[in-house]
Amino acid sequence: MLTISQRGKQMPPSPIRKLVPYAEAARKKGIKVFHLNIGQPDIETPKEIMDAVRHTEMKVLEYSHSAGNESYRRKLVQYYKRVGIDVSHEQILVTTGGSEAIMFGFFTCLNPGDEVIIPEPFYANYNGFACAAGVNVVPIKSNIETGFALPPIEDFEKVITAKTKAIIVCNPNNPTGYLYSRKEMEELKNICIKHNLYLFSDEAYREFCYDGDYVSAMHLPGLEQHVVLMDTISKRYSACGARLGALVTKNKEVYDAAMKFAQARLSPPGLAQIMGEAAVDLPEHYFDQPKAEYMARRDLLVKRLNAMPGVFCPKPGGAFYAMARLPVDDSDKFCQWLLESFSYNQQTVMLAPATGFYGTPGLGKNEVRLAYVLNRESIAAAMDCLEKALEQYPGKTAVKMSAAVAEK
Amino acid sequence: MLTISQRGKQMPPSPIRKLVPYAEAARKKGIKVFHLNIGQPDIETPKEIMDAVRHTEMKVLEYSHSAGNESYRRKLVQYYKRVGIDVSHEQILVTTGGSEAIMFGFFTCLNPGDEVIIPEPFYANYNGFACAAGVNVVPIKSNIETGFALPPIEDFEKVITAKTKAIIVCNPNNPTGYLYSRKEMEELKNICIKHNLYLFSDEAYREFCYDGDYVSAMHLPGLEQHVVLMDTISKRYSACGARLGALVTKNKEVYDAAMKFAQARLSPPGLAQIMGEAAVDLPEHYFDQPKAEYMARRDLLVKRLNAMPGVFCPKPGGAFYAMARLPVDDSDKFCQWLLESFSYNQQTVMLAPATGFYGTPGLGKNEVRLAYVLNRESIAAAMDCLEKALEQYPGKTAVKMSAAVAEK
Repeated sequence: MLTISQRGKQMPPSPIRKLVPYAEAARKKGIKVFHLNIGQPDIETPKEIMDAVRHTEMKVLEYSHSAGNESYRRKLVQYYKRVGIDVSHEQILVTTGGSEAIMFGFFTCLNPGDEVIIPEPFYANYNGFACAAGVNVVPIKSNIETGFALPPIEDFEKVITAKTKAIIVCNPNNPTGYLYSRKEMEELKNICIKHNLYLFSDEAYREFCYDGDYVSAMHLPGLEQHVVLMDTISKRYSACGARLGALVTKNKEVYDAAMKFAQARLSPPGLAQIMGEAAVDLPEHYFDQPKAEYMARRDLLVKRLNAMPGVFCPKPGGAFYAMARLPVDDSDKFCQWLLESFSYNQQTVMLAPATGFYGTPGLGKNEVRLAYVLNRESIAAAMDCLEKALEQYPGKTAVKMSAAVAEK
Repeated sequence: MLTISQRGKQMPPSPIRKLVPYAEAARKKGIKVFHLNIGQPDIETPKEIMDAVRHTEMKVLEYSHSAGNESYRRKLVQYYKRVGIDVSHEQILVTTGGSEAIMFGFFTCLNPGDEVIIPEPFYANYNGFACAAGVNVVPIKSNIETGFALPPIEDFEKVITAKTKAIIVCNPNNPTGYLYSRKEMEELKNICIKHNLYLFSDEAYREFCYDGDYVSAMHLPGLEQHVVLMDTISKRYSACGARLGALVTKNKEVYDAAMKFAQARLSPPGLAQIMGEAAVDLPEHYFDQPKAEYMARRDLLVKRLNAMPGVFCPKPGGAFYAMARLPVDDSDKFCQWLLESFSYNQQTVMLAPATGFYGTPGLGKNEVRLAYVLNRESIAAAMDCLEKALEQYPGKTAVKMSAAVAEK
């Protein structure tokens, strides 16, 4: 009998997308669904970069260099310089989205059976790439009470084995929105040097830091050989569908090996690279408006959430996600119920159950992730829905008022 | 010490691109290099499909569905119907180039340590995906004397073990240009059914068949569950840089597992899908002109090659590649010498040594692959260079005149 592979069986389905059929069914019933479940921003892709593609005079859409067009990589050198990262165009490998940068990192640095430590909750697709690469994810818990700060370094030390080869940090974090401090990044640096670990640094949301300074893994002197930066233009310029990212590293051995994976797939998308070049030429103030908008949305969302009885949402310092603890028995059930059995004024809200972001089974059962990728009016309407839903949901748990109040 | 992974070390560098530095050095010396080494066509990308992108009014370049936009998959259903392949849009998974379709096939169907049989010479990047997936490639030799026809089915039987899970066929073939007959495809079908093997069918060059009918693996009744079709628009519409392909299968278990790999990387490129949709709307006669052009180039190339003393080039039935046997000691050395030490009228030619296309070490040492992706004038000039080069090359081997003549 024909059988699929073990990894094909073990590969986790997307936890964010598994509720999609319920959302489609709700829509068919005429219910408007506010999508706070997925990091697809509504901010317009800058017209300048779409126009760059519209005005291309290219006659033949050729393969680019496997590492990306040199002209684009040289532009990226300028971009990185602006954010305090000093790299050459030969340390930048242009990838098909940040996803491919993550994949190249796993395949280039880790053997099957190796372990990668990731503070949980974490970006769920790390699981998929780990599964594809045969790598084991070792989660260590960060807590909603601290706003998902870096777990104590002792927690890392406890799980480090001979198999541990890397730590992944996403900064600012998806799904928590937490912005790691310089002190935390220094702690990560020290442990990576002490135990000879790679630091995979996913910095997709670099431009969206609200209450503090962004510290890149590439800002840490002495860690140059350890850092594999995974980057993407998806969120930065609201261009998720371009599929354009980059793997950046000063470790030549890693770069050269990643390049062989890049050669096997020939080249990253060509039209997206035209957009990428134009993006580097956007005026420096370009980010002011989207950043202000995200910040206003965050403030609204967090305020509304924390005003609901039994709900706790730490204020995220960056990205465009917030994690909230809800007074519900099971966030998977609750999110499905929102789509299947609930509506308010013919509207409902789609959230991502946090269970999909934890590596440890059982965690996240009373947490959800909210992506503030809709305008404030929609967020307000979505919060109205959530508020009503929490009043009606049959699986509601007792609200610990004192604790909830204390946390706010 | 930080170390890269075993697969990072074992990953083969691109055999086609390894001569690139020598070509760059030649160019710097003012020598014009005719690139017959790589399958990058000079045929213009149809203006209609570039215009579809130029005229897009898209405001936000969003993630598409992980399987590709449904509208594009429905268009592809029409396309496949035209080439006699009856599939639904739920059997099509849009990928980032044919490369990703190959990768998904390997990861979905094969376990580490499993074996895949491929007639050699074969598309070199299969090695890269096999290495990434931990899969062993088992080559079986096809011969230049037969024009690289399918090896006898006994040769397949001989190497089939409990670990064998799939056969890959590229039809029409890259690098040989061989067009498999219905009889050969039926033989592959029988052996796949007998031994429960997947048939990975790479049909990137489907539209370019010159001397016979194209038979898809999907034209073989009874093989539906075995076939994983790997496809791309790269060559079909001269749009290599779009990075748009497809994995097509009627095997639901394979499709569903491949879909999980697709979800991990979120979506295929968005702008390319606009091109892809427009491509399906091109008039049916679109292919007449490029096909006639490739055919004329093939005829010129093959005639010129076979007119050179000691050279033998079987006439390829499809794609835009030809393999030629040259009277040289070592095709790698010869191809490097062409760039490093030779020029004729300030011109030279870049070829792909065939060694990179064989899995068995030592094979292909007197063969090269030529991609007829330049216009006839350039091909003629490139052949002038090659002719002169073979006269001058110090590592020339004795020409077996009788054999050479007999073959022509």
